[in-house]
Amino acid sequence: MATAPGSAGTRGRRRGRPGYDKETLLHIAVTLFNERGYDGTSMEDLGKKLGITKSAIYYHVDSKEELLRLGTNRALDELFAVAAEAGAADGRAIDRLEHLVRGSVRVLVEQLPFVTLLLRVRGNTEVERAALDRRREFDRIVGELVLQAEKEGDVRPDVDPATTARLLFGMVNSIIEWYRPRFDTDDAGLADAVARIAFDGIRVNGRA
Amino acid sequence: MATAPGSAGTRGRRRGRPGYDKETLLHIAVTLFNERGYDGTSMEDLGKKLGITKSAIYYHVDSKEELLRLGTNRALDELFAVAAEAGAADGRAIDRLEHLVRGSVRVLVEQLPFVTLLLRVRGNTEVERAALDRRREFDRIVGELVLQAEKEGDVRPDVDPATTARLLFGMVNSIIEWYRPRFDTDDAGLADAVARIAFDGIRVNGRA
Repeated sequence: MATAPGSAGTRGRRRGRPGYDKETLLHIAVTLFNERGYDGTSMEDLGKKLGITKSAIYYHVDSKEELLRLGTNRALDELFAVAAEAGAADGRAIDRLEHLVRGSVRVLVEQLPFVTLLLRVRGNTEVERAALDRRREFDRIVGELVLQAEKEGDVRPDVDPATTARLLFGMVNSIIEWYRPRFDTDDAGLADAVARIAFDGIRVNGRA
Repeated sequence: MATAPGSAGTRGRRRGRPGYDKETLLHIAVTLFNERGYDGTSMEDLGKKLGITKSAIYYHVDSKEELLRLGTNRALDELFAVAAEAGAADGRAIDRLEHLVRGSVRVLVEQLPFVTLLLRVRGNTEVERAALDRRREFDRIVGELVLQAEKEGDVRPDVDPATTARLLFGMVNSIIEWYRPRFDTDDAGLADAVARIAFDGIRVNGRA
């Protein structure tokens, strides 16, 4: 969904004022928020980074908060889209959970700056609290899948399901801390790696 | 090591100026850095939080950077102490790795504010770069243990060892995002949970 600044796709969709379309503006704003912190970034900083005036930014968005809302919703919409896919909705809970894990890894990699923004939100404003609410709703879906998979006998019962769910997505979300596109393995390879390690562990001995 | 503010241990060790000893000052400073960000916290903010003057803070430390150095080193010293333990130094690499994972979980839980500070360091100052260097050295130890355990046939060879090491400690480090003392399971239970899931996976079927 997100188009890298300056890519052909972005250039083709430019309209309104010259300089930047809304998508490119959002991408650069979110990257700046991630570098300096949302609170530490002003619209002046963003204008300076873009080489445009504040009023050119306000042509596209009403406020800094709107950029935050658009940025966090980009990540959340994609994550909920994965949860709504057939593979995450039908079948045994363990398989739906694996579908959700693999899809989430794909979203993290494809929407890296947006998911990074989302995962750093602390809830100081209304927009941030709304993002946290949606994040909790996603976590609730994960938690229920783990619980159901345990009831179906597929997830180990010797760890509390809430802890299992947190550690599982703790591993998934850690990707934003170290994954760098181009330098790392592709996202299909990464999804395989996460699924293998999370579901069957890093140890060879004892696995079938 | 860290003593909670106002606990009996802290009160017994007060000396010099009245109000706060250095340990308590450090604990409160680090907690404030975690809440507001290191860059976003001034010595004035810290004085206000403590209800003391800036000069009362400077009685204990030379600068805000010294507080950052002390805070990140607290976490790093404890992590390297685990890596230096016999259990992490002798025997099969997979067992040393498990010792290191369990010990790291213990450090994260016991030194939660200090490890949180460490994991959020971005490297903008000399002190931050020094902390990142030590963190990389710790990650190098983890990476070598994973590599050796794979050579010894104990870690799955179908995931690149560097990715395995990152995902393993991604799971461990995620604890700072959600673990809250008193409300969550104790640290021994948490270390068991992490070791079980990381080494043998969340799936029941297929494990011995």
